[in-house]
Amino acid sequence: MSEQEKPKFTDISELGEFGLIDRIKSETKIYTKESVKGIGDDAAVLVNLEGQHTVVSTDMLVEGVHFDLSYMPLKHLGYKAVAVNVSDIAAMNVIPKQITVSIAVSNRFSVEAVDELYEGIRLACENYKVDMVGGDTTSSRAGLVISVTAIGQGKADEIVYRDTANKGDILCVTGDLGGAYMGLQVLEREKQVFLSNQEMQPELSGKEYVVRRQLRPDARTDIIHELKEIGLLPTSMIDISDGLGSEVMHLCKGSGLGAVIYEEKLPIDQETYHVATDEFKMSAITCMLNGGEDYELLFTIKQEDYPKIKNSPNITAIGYMQEKENGVKLVTKMQQVIDIQAQGWKHF
Amino acid sequence: MSEQEKPKFTDISELGEFGLIDRIKSETKIYTKESVKGIGDDAAVLVNLEGQHTVVSTDMLVEGVHFDLSYMPLKHLGYKAVAVNVSDIAAMNVIPKQITVSIAVSNRFSVEAVDELYEGIRLACENYKVDMVGGDTTSSRAGLVISVTAIGQGKADEIVYRDTANKGDILCVTGDLGGAYMGLQVLEREKQVFLSNQEMQPELSGKEYVVRRQLRPDARTDIIHELKEIGLLPTSMIDISDGLGSEVMHLCKGSGLGAVIYEEKLPIDQETYHVATDEFKMSAITCMLNGGEDYELLFTIKQEDYPKIKNSPNITAIGYMQEKENGVKLVTKMQQVIDIQAQGWKHF
Repeated sequence: MSEQEKPKFTDISELGEFGLIDRIKSETKIYTKESVKGIGDDAAVLVNLEGQHTVVSTDMLVEGVHFDLSYMPLKHLGYKAVAVNVSDIAAMNVIPKQITVSIAVSNRFSVEAVDELYEGIRLACENYKVDMVGGDTTSSRAGLVISVTAIGQGKADEIVYRDTANKGDILCVTGDLGGAYMGLQVLEREKQVFLSNQEMQPELSGKEYVVRRQLRPDARTDIIHELKEIGLLPTSMIDISDGLGSEVMHLCKGSGLGAVIYEEKLPIDQETYHVATDEFKMSAITCMLNGGEDYELLFTIKQEDYPKIKNSPNITAIGYMQEKENGVKLVTKMQQVIDIQAQGWKHF
Repeated sequence: MSEQEKPKFTDISELGEFGLIDRIKSETKIYTKESVKGIGDDAAVLVNLEGQHTVVSTDMLVEGVHFDLSYMPLKHLGYKAVAVNVSDIAAMNVIPKQITVSIAVSNRFSVEAVDELYEGIRLACENYKVDMVGGDTTSSRAGLVISVTAIGQGKADEIVYRDTANKGDILCVTGDLGGAYMGLQVLEREKQVFLSNQEMQPELSGKEYVVRRQLRPDARTDIIHELKEIGLLPTSMIDISDGLGSEVMHLCKGSGLGAVIYEEKLPIDQETYHVATDEFKMSAITCMLNGGEDYELLFTIKQEDYPKIKNSPNITAIGYMQEKENGVKLVTKMQQVIDIQAQGWKHF
């Protein structure tokens, strides 16, 4: 039967567990020679690189908590589930090589819906050159749950932790901040408009960047390659998943230090700025400090390494680490000095 | 405030994400020297043992699908979630060393309930000497979801796959079969009795073994140690999570072979036999072939290795591998020859 002749929606029960696993396995490519055994046995088998450490991270995404399928296409969701885990490995200054993906889906999802999710997962695997080497597929009584574990290997002395910053180190961020958060605000607003009048079409023009930041974020593995190329080893690093404020607090707490960051240095995209200030009457600084899910990297470097990054279009110096007693501070454009507070998530 | 003075139920929102992570982290012990960095950074860091491969497996347990909290104590659930993943690594002939644990919990769970779950997780970690090196905690809109990833390392030529059995190899199982399945039947029956008359207390006496097999199964890492001690390298191996029939089919499919197993050889505990045949009027063979969740090991060995296992109280030879054309067969006690069918799960 050709692709065209297939019925559009297939019950997962028609395939069963083994059929679904075979379907997922058959479409899965392997990119690295380190993946000896992928999907299909009790466990995946990976080559240990000599003199390196294995780095492992895991994240769980839950429908209704981390994503809303009324505006999150399944393909993007699959991509994002991989990207956020890849980002955690990148935040250790390591390039991820493998992932495992477990999903729980209710029977309201068709085989085609699962296909779309895995299409996004595979797209991310291709983009980041990571191998999907295992996972689990099960049903759920309610929503969709995706749990991804990402694995990489790095030389022991090149793995960068969050608790090793030193006083005087320069704080740097990659890319720009607050976009993903404003994308979420736009999508939530359009959802409410649609719910109150189902003939309204979502108005997303001029907001493509922020919406993309929310729906299909990219992990900054490119920065890890760039840092290796310019011979720069950060003194500490973390990825920005909960918002800059929170992550700066983590670096400070881990390293037993304080920090100062300057509002005027914080990178923001013009579209993010416009959407925040003009459309949502929100201060840009709130959006940058508290808005999560940008998946940019926050790291510290020694002062003498500053020349290596100062011309990079991808990296911005935003402040420095100071003694713990001096606190974690933001210097506003008006030269006010205020305390930074951690936000964290408030899902419960 | 002392333990006694604490209020009994605490809302997770009172602790928040970071509070909950700190609570989990503070109680967590590390048993192996290979775990360089555990909970608390973007990723865990593990020492690569030279000349070894890393083995990774993951399983997701979903409330209402894999467990029913009306009779599954959270502590047992935590233990079981670890054991089933440890079992997958054992099934590669490898001793697991680390796990990551991600949970999604709804706000109907208190901090104390989460504590109880992690108490079981920690008990399993202590028992199997595995380190909990990472994970994720999030909320869920509905039930509880637990996703565990287990990691171990083994010498490349000692890792055992499911697709490497040879014709003539002897099929062996560990322990006894069908207990976990009968335990589930007992628990389900008692639940129905309780639902129809809430003054009835569950009647579990004389069923302690099967109930324990269901609620708190153990992974057979002891067998992996035993095999190493007696110098026996299986030619193929798998763990019995879906029932013996299904797993024999997997070995056969993977290895391109058929198999014969003998009903009279299949190991069953007396209590399992009694509960199956007397109480549930079920044939013992159905229970052994199709009942899942025993987490025993199924493996093949060369014929010349048979003397090494024949006196082991933990290992039983149940049949042998044959040519694919001869099929996958069960020889009953009445000497009837019947086809074995795969079951797999039918959650959808």
